[in-house]
Amino acid sequence: MSRCLRRWSVVTLWLVLAAACSRESPPVSPPTPASVTAADPLPSWNDGAAKKSLVDFVGRVTREGGPDFVTAPERIATFDNDGTLWSEKPVPFQLLFAFDRVKALAPQHPEWNTKEPFASLLKGDMAGVAGSGEKGVLAIVAATHAGMTTDEFSAAVHEWITTAKHPQTGRLFTEMVYQPMLEALAYLRANGFKTFIVSGGGVEFMRPWAERVYGIPPEQVVGSSGKLQLEMRNGTPVLVKLAALDLLDDKEGKPVGIQRQIGRRPIAAFGNSDGDLQMLQWAMAGAGARFALFVHHDDATREFAYDRTDKLQQFNQGWDEAVAKGWTVVSMKNDWKTVFPAGSDPRPQR
Amino acid sequence: MSRCLRRWSVVTLWLVLAAACSRESPPVSPPTPASVTAADPLPSWNDGAAKKSLVDFVGRVTREGGPDFVTAPERIATFDNDGTLWSEKPVPFQLLFAFDRVKALAPQHPEWNTKEPFASLLKGDMAGVAGSGEKGVLAIVAATHAGMTTDEFSAAVHEWITTAKHPQTGRLFTEMVYQPMLEALAYLRANGFKTFIVSGGGVEFMRPWAERVYGIPPEQVVGSSGKLQLEMRNGTPVLVKLAALDLLDDKEGKPVGIQRQIGRRPIAAFGNSDGDLQMLQWAMAGAGARFALFVHHDDATREFAYDRTDKLQQFNQGWDEAVAKGWTVVSMKNDWKTVFPAGSDPRPQR
Repeated sequence: MSRCLRRWSVVTLWLVLAAACSRESPPVSPPTPASVTAADPLPSWNDGAAKKSLVDFVGRVTREGGPDFVTAPERIATFDNDGTLWSEKPVPFQLLFAFDRVKALAPQHPEWNTKEPFASLLKGDMAGVAGSGEKGVLAIVAATHAGMTTDEFSAAVHEWITTAKHPQTGRLFTEMVYQPMLEALAYLRANGFKTFIVSGGGVEFMRPWAERVYGIPPEQVVGSSGKLQLEMRNGTPVLVKLAALDLLDDKEGKPVGIQRQIGRRPIAAFGNSDGDLQMLQWAMAGAGARFALFVHHDDATREFAYDRTDKLQQFNQGWDEAVAKGWTVVSMKNDWKTVFPAGSDPRPQR
Repeated sequence: MSRCLRRWSVVTLWLVLAAACSRESPPVSPPTPASVTAADPLPSWNDGAAKKSLVDFVGRVTREGGPDFVTAPERIATFDNDGTLWSEKPVPFQLLFAFDRVKALAPQHPEWNTKEPFASLLKGDMAGVAGSGEKGVLAIVAATHAGMTTDEFSAAVHEWITTAKHPQTGRLFTEMVYQPMLEALAYLRANGFKTFIVSGGGVEFMRPWAERVYGIPPEQVVGSSGKLQLEMRNGTPVLVKLAALDLLDDKEGKPVGIQRQIGRRPIAAFGNSDGDLQMLQWAMAGAGARFALFVHHDDATREFAYDRTDKLQQFNQGWDEAVAKGWTVVSMKNDWKTVFPAGSDPRPQR
């Protein structure tokens, strides 16, 4: 997390923080209900090359006796989270959680009223927060993600994820997951796949809700993490979250996270940015049938449109390689009939 | 691994290495076939308090509507490996693997003929190896567990585990797994549990065979690990095993490894030494019904007998706490009808 944030320039931070607080022109239109037919496991996907490639791949690896058959235990599929399973604009939602946590914790920290970047954040002065630079954002992350037990942090995430609203759409963040991806997860599981998240986001931030929202249990969530330390408190063991980085599960860190936690190579991987490129390469470099999918955010009407010019979510290398190697590229605008779930609190099939 | 080995005294090492090479008095008698009855999921367990406590626990947490019911996703059971699922005498088997790897790699390392501790090891002079102390053993571990890709290491483990024999029993190491524990694993899984290994041993050492032998897939193996690094070699990504420690999954490290990889607290935990105590404490400290089991190696005839006086596998704290808190204590001698599987290559039910 911290090294990731360090990559941001101060200019980027300013743009990002300013955007995070703008409530103008919500770009997201109300979701369209997906038309479901019994025969189609992917009703929110338009017929086209992307949908066909996924269905063909699943058909090939599950056809017993066929040349591309893969036994069920080897059917591992990994999904990036930010921008692949849910939105990531104006900033990865975990950063908004961190900002809200500062506000929630402020009564216990009177010194924050005069200490930057906390003072600016508490006054709603996002330009001031941005002015504190990387050091300031790192201080916010450290203050909100470390120095508490894993149980305390999990409770804070649960409270936030069930109440906080997106600054532009006014929806719960768990309502900004992609309906077509929920269907892809369910479709893969129905075909014997084990589905994993492999995200640059914090593992302890995703686990409290990933099972309810995505049907992905905690043990199948791989993410960035801080070091943990066991302590005895009044005879009871607790795990304390330390500020030191344990794994940055992004770029080169994704295959490392996959090997560390899953211990075998995925045969299918889904991403949307340069942070996912090494995971897609890792999946594709194995023997036998392989599948890589790259999401292109080109739908300014129903979601957000961003690509080469985007300062925060870098995209170029991943996109170029996906196109050059003929990986499956999803145009959100053209390939997805629906973007967000119709219900107010999506509960996907497990 | 390395910090673990560092704890050993030179005297201990000498004892250990000497014992590892002794081929006298095999203590293991031929396995007795287990009597299987359709009604009994644990046929190799004698009726008694230990068996009853496990069956009672499983009954309580699976009885829907009962006061102790636990939903299936929360039914997480963790098992230590060395001394809990398979034997660990005369030394943890992974150390024998390391010694054999030195011999296998020697042709590529002519300098080892004159460099300690390799020179002593290659001459079969275990006293000489022990004389090189902790530094020597660490050099052996580094030379055999780092500096290669994960795929290369996995292939080396596979080759060894399917051919190498125990110095005293002459059996494959995978034939020295405990039949009653194979039954406990299958029994828990049949009751909706997800079973995990949580071992001080190396995660990359266990994964190549844990699925075949225990029915535990790689993603459910937690263990000690070295750091990994992604490299591109001729356009193909590989993961290289580095000599630096990533996680020592022993003692305080076990709850850390559990949280890092599983992300929820087990409701049942199985161990046999001080290295498992914190895992057992962590499992027992959660809310609701809990189960902790501690194996006592008291069967010199069928396996090995060791406890308080043992220099290598420390036992005292774990044993004392298990007794004081009324955890389930297994006497291998009295509670197990059979110790090892009857077949030559055990393939447990999945």
